Amino acid sequence: MKNLTETLHHIPGTRREYVAFSGANATTPYLSDTQQKYQRKLFASVDEVLDRCDLHDGMTVSFHHAFREGDKVINYVMEKLAQRGLKGITLASSSLMSCNAPLIEHIRSGVIGKIYTSGMRGELADAISHGLMDEPVQIHSHGGRVNLIQKGEIAIDVAFLAVSCSDEYGNASGNGGTSQCGSLGYAMVDAQYAKKVVLLTETLKPFPNLPASIVQDRVDYVVQIESVGDPAKISVGAARVTSNPRELMIARSAADVIEHSGYFRNGFSIQTGSGAASTACTRFMEARMRKHNIVARFALGGITGSIVDLHQKGLIEKILDTQSFDGAAAASMTVNPGHVEISTNVYANPAAKAACCDRVDVVILSALEVDTRFNVNVLTGSDGVMRGASGGHCDVAAAANLTIVVAPLIRSRIPTVVRQVTTLVTPGESIDVLVTDHGIAVNPARPEIRERLIHAGLAVVDIEALYQKALLISGEPKPVAFTDRIVGVVRYRDGSVIDVVHQVKE
Amino acid sequence: MKNLTETLHHIPGTRREYVAFSGANATTPYLSDTQQKYQRKLFASVDEVLDRCDLHDGMTVSFHHAFREGDKVINYVMEKLAQRGLKGITLASSSLMSCNAPLIEHIRSGVIGKIYTSGMRGELADAISHGLMDEPVQIHSHGGRVNLIQKGEIAIDVAFLAVSCSDEYGNASGNGGTSQCGSLGYAMVDAQYAKKVVLLTETLKPFPNLPASIVQDRVDYVVQIESVGDPAKISVGAARVTSNPRELMIARSAADVIEHSGYFRNGFSIQTGSGAASTACTRFMEARMRKHNIVARFALGGITGSIVDLHQKGLIEKILDTQSFDGAAAASMTVNPGHVEISTNVYANPAAKAACCDRVDVVILSALEVDTRFNVNVLTGSDGVMRGASGGHCDVAAAANLTIVVAPLIRSRIPTVVRQVTTLVTPGESIDVLVTDHGIAVNPARPEIRERLIHAGLAVVDIEALYQKALLISGEPKPVAFTDRIVGVVRYRDGSVIDVVHQVKE
Repeated sequence: MKNLTETLHHIPGTRREYVAFSGANATTPYLSDTQQKYQRKLFASVDEVLDRCDLHDGMTVSFHHAFREGDKVINYVMEKLAQRGLKGITLASSSLMSCNAPLIEHIRSGVIGKIYTSGMRGELADAISHGLMDEPVQIHSHGGRVNLIQKGEIAIDVAFLAVSCSDEYGNASGNGGTSQCGSLGYAMVDAQYAKKVVLLTETLKPFPNLPASIVQDRVDYVVQIESVGDPAKISVGAARVTSNPRELMIARSAADVIEHSGYFRNGFSIQTGSGAASTACTRFMEARMRKHNIVARFALGGITGSIVDLHQKGLIEKILDTQSFDGAAAASMTVNPGHVEISTNVYANPAAKAACCDRVDVVILSALEVDTRFNVNVLTGSDGVMRGASGGHCDVAAAANLTIVVAPLIRSRIPTVVRQVTTLVTPGESIDVLVTDHGIAVNPARPEIRERLIHAGLAVVDIEALYQKALLISGEPKPVAFTDRIVGVVRYRDGSVIDVVHQVKE
Repeated sequence: MKNLTETLHHIPGTRREYVAFSGANATTPYLSDTQQKYQRKLFASVDEVLDRCDLHDGMTVSFHHAFREGDKVINYVMEKLAQRGLKGITLASSSLMSCNAPLIEHIRSGVIGKIYTSGMRGELADAISHGLMDEPVQIHSHGGRVNLIQKGEIAIDVAFLAVSCSDEYGNASGNGGTSQCGSLGYAMVDAQYAKKVVLLTETLKPFPNLPASIVQDRVDYVVQIESVGDPAKISVGAARVTSNPRELMIARSAADVIEHSGYFRNGFSIQTGSGAASTACTRFMEARMRKHNIVARFALGGITGSIVDLHQKGLIEKILDTQSFDGAAAASMTVNPGHVEISTNVYANPAAKAACCDRVDVVILSALEVDTRFNVNVLTGSDGVMRGASGGHCDVAAAANLTIVVAPLIRSRIPTVVRQVTTLVTPGESIDVLVTDHGIAVNPARPEIRERLIHAGLAVVDIEALYQKALLISGEPKPVAFTDRIVGVVRYRDGSVIDVVHQVKE
């Protein structure tokens, strides 16, 4: 070989710093050891992985919630971090559920100092609503979460990602193992932006476990654990299937609205959010689609078995799945090539180069409260306690051509239609139609839709009338007693603050 | 709504700057205009796209070479940039071919000031070897290119990516249109790292064109053009299929080496590089695999029809495809779910979190020259003129368990086995076996392999003997006359300089 180091000084041009070659594996020493070459990312225990994660007080760790109420990784890893004496951690989970009640202890002891999440439920939500945390919880939408990550507000140090299966290089999927969650739409984003990515896999597959949802070049460490989640609990709670006659009636009524809205055309696209009446609406679409000879171009979002059913019947051409809401949806991805997994960036981030929600014609969303200006609350109950999630609500509501909210007028004697929502999550300007069991209200900004529904003979009423009816049935609700202390900050999809949640008085 | 701006000042905690919500579409004004919402990335002409690309002197533009000699985009776009009077552009194409001769004019006129490429051929290579450029060409490997991009040395301002089909949001594929190139492994990397990404598509598909090789959140602009490439010319040149008896003899001999190397086991993995004898080797594997009841776990790399054939016969379980070397390979990806597209980062970047080449048991590579220390030159001819490409050569050679180089001892009366390679691309320490038509030489660093091949009765000889034989047949080659001027810098996969190319004297 020529004297390279000398030669480097004589290379002309604008580039100044060259390094001379110093051996085939100078930067890849593991290549000379077959064991290292094959196994360098795989560890036998979570503790061995944590030893390599540059853990420190005040760090940010992230998780996904694809297993919903069945998740076993969030509590498990946070307990491990607590055992190591870490303090002031920012927990950035795509969402939190009732199953995350054990986190209360870690907040009390100072292990968790701050939380970013789409929402929360159960004891954890109750405790935080009553002032458990010094810092308010940051509530984001699914699309807005990616936005906050890209802007650097959520700067993930380590992402701990539950997967159904992975090979030892980190090619991983939400299907293919024992416990399947389906789409890893949230996890795909964290795998891209986190400084370190740890996969917790239930099943270890031989290399190459490709195609994969998360590909090896995003993954630092892989560890096999006994169980990452209970898939039977994915469809518990918000993603449940209903047989409640009132919910079914509202769902049927929403299907009527779609049919006559002007957007029910061959090649239309649809999304049904979580919430029983919303997902149930899908079941009433089939007859209407067959009757009008309509095939949907795609269905987006949280995907249910009833969407898969329409896809397999040829009534929906493609499914774009950022979260599988039940076992049927999870299983479908592996057998239906038209059922495509997408990240939450591709799904709904307003700052992405393109978001699929922008292509949705019709979306059906749920609500805890709707006020007479069509503002929606999906986060707090009328008692002021957090019990829901922002989800993709404001993302798709803003983007879709027709946004329908479905809700019973009264829930357990508490009115859903109110003068002013307890917490504003989705602004009324994004909502076109409200479907209740006491009639259908259309946003005055959409007179043409109101005309079409009246023309079709549907029970269109003014939202003020719905409000008055609710008052008549359940009486004027007592105003909630809040303290001045802010316990939650509701971030709109673009990162701006759309509302705050105050601490509930005892 | 409460007075939000006032409220923001009272949010406790560490985060200081909040912005108040100011409308559902404050950051997404296009959502209120259906035309804008659907078409904002799609333009009718390349010129309209270029108007939006922040073009400036000294900028870096990138391309991929999946259409190889059939590419129609590189010359077309560079001509457009020349027409706009741009100067000093850094051209970063994953490789350049004989078809890129029109670029000579743009170098002469100062439009192109610097080039990064895996290699070059034909008139362009000839002109540069004779001193056309003021700045030396930077030659990188396929894995090394991604490394240079990630480190920021190649900072792509605009990537112009030819695709077979795309929807108007930029969900694109190398299949599915009229002209198919198959894998978009190179383009996937540029789409991830470029500041702006422009897709030039031949076919426009309805949204959502998913699953896709390049997904919408990576794409800024989409423009349809008449033709992006001629797929019939993908397999011209280095990727051609041979019927040359000597090449077939070498290929058969390489298959013998594999069979007796100790690496021919059930579940083994294989890669065949470009070059006729290398790709032909696949054709001799089938009988040997059947005889020993062996199924390969995967084949990696540039993929040919003969690899696809073995896959379809059940002899190769998975194909990991970063570049499709012929139409059969390109077509296979759409029908064989086990034929998986991978990016060049996942393929071979030594700085990636994992590279598939690290899992290869056996790789068969070609060479223009091999010297008696097993160093390999795949870039310059023995006349010193550039006529080849670094490709994935040094990447996979460094990583594979068994690296075999195949080459005729003499090519057109010029010896292939030499005392010292004209240009060093892959270091001898990465090469295990050299297979020629005059015998098989084994690197002294691998005595166990030498033993196995001798034991199997193969024609093992010392590399010195091959060198002497070449001398005897063709005589001592005249040393090439070079000037002191450096026209090419050969970058090893880790970015270090492994050699330079000097200007050839007239």
